[in-house]
Amino acid sequence: MLTVALPKGELLKNSIRLLQSVGLDFSAFLDSGNRQLQILDASGQAKGLLVRAQDVPVYVEYGQAQLGIVGYDVLREKQPQVAHLVDLQFGYCRMSVAVKASSPYKSPLDFSPHCRIASKYVNCAREYFQSLDLPVEIVPLSGSVELGPITGMSEAIVDLVSTGRTLRENGLIELETLYHSTARLIGHPLSYRINTGNLCELSAKLREVALVGV
Amino acid sequence: MLTVALPKGELLKNSIRLLQSVGLDFSAFLDSGNRQLQILDASGQAKGLLVRAQDVPVYVEYGQAQLGIVGYDVLREKQPQVAHLVDLQFGYCRMSVAVKASSPYKSPLDFSPHCRIASKYVNCAREYFQSLDLPVEIVPLSGSVELGPITGMSEAIVDLVSTGRTLRENGLIELETLYHSTARLIGHPLSYRINTGNLCELSAKLREVALVGV
Repeated sequence: MLTVALPKGELLKNSIRLLQSVGLDFSAFLDSGNRQLQILDASGQAKGLLVRAQDVPVYVEYGQAQLGIVGYDVLREKQPQVAHLVDLQFGYCRMSVAVKASSPYKSPLDFSPHCRIASKYVNCAREYFQSLDLPVEIVPLSGSVELGPITGMSEAIVDLVSTGRTLRENGLIELETLYHSTARLIGHPLSYRINTGNLCELSAKLREVALVGV
Repeated sequence: MLTVALPKGELLKNSIRLLQSVGLDFSAFLDSGNRQLQILDASGQAKGLLVRAQDVPVYVEYGQAQLGIVGYDVLREKQPQVAHLVDLQFGYCRMSVAVKASSPYKSPLDFSPHCRIASKYVNCAREYFQSLDLPVEIVPLSGSVELGPITGMSEAIVDLVSTGRTLRENGLIELETLYHSTARLIGHPLSYRINTGNLCELSAKLREVALVGV
């Protein structure tokens, strides 16, 4: 039986809607009273695992789930050994460099070489500033990254921006976009290659649905 | 002015109570309507920063906060360059190895060398199994670690246990304790050495209060 790893949070609702369109019903995960992290789809064809977004690629990499849905941002940051199958065309957001609106910076190229950048995405941030040949110091934070510039610990942040509301509320502005992100269907490479549980057909169906829009 | 980094979550209430006992009032952080992550204590002597537990040592290491309160588990996992000042004697919990109650294992020494261990505390887990000379594979998860053994992805977990309720609810039992953890007062090494804002006196007062019990 196929197992699909689904991400808690922002992408869950659309992920469930998408899977429903190909006959897999995991809507029980949306019940407010649900405490189960593992359920069978209503037709008994597949199992759903509800895990943190960052853990989706882990379950897929280890083959515990053959399919998973997760944001491109997580894949780009963690570089897991999974097959990128489909751009699902929802969950649009961008990875951006932001600074205090009151700062003199007009571009990341204005940053001094000893500048500090706070981020949850340390690999993405490092890669970006290396590409600029700017040897900044990356400060790893796990939440409320906007406190970096507010407290003065860092000159800038690299963070995921969706509506931009959090930035605005904290007096920050975007200087540059590193990349755009959407939800992705990922697969366990070996399972995909040997087509476990008709994985390839399911993936093709999901690609079609994603193109039309969920 | 001194800045104190306080951890969101479990340890917040007792941390605030402790600081109140030495005249620093950050109880505004406990108001359900509070959205501020940075406040002045009522007497205007110090600033409080409300951040994720894992980020407390980051703010202290970079000297953005001179003092912080955080669980020993975080310090042990991240090994930040901070001064360990006081064992605050609250927030008792333990780092344990747990397996399915139905498994045949009686001790971690029974694990096979290719065993998988899921954990949020990958460094603690790695260090422990290295001390046993058992070359297990550590699977890094960021939440719901108990799903590791339940789904069969891992034979065991290394996780923080407080009451043991989560383990029981998931049919897991503890095999061994790696170490015990409590809340700790940490300081920025240089600030402590030069006694910024009478840091040493405050730390000594907190040590006295902690000994008596908050």
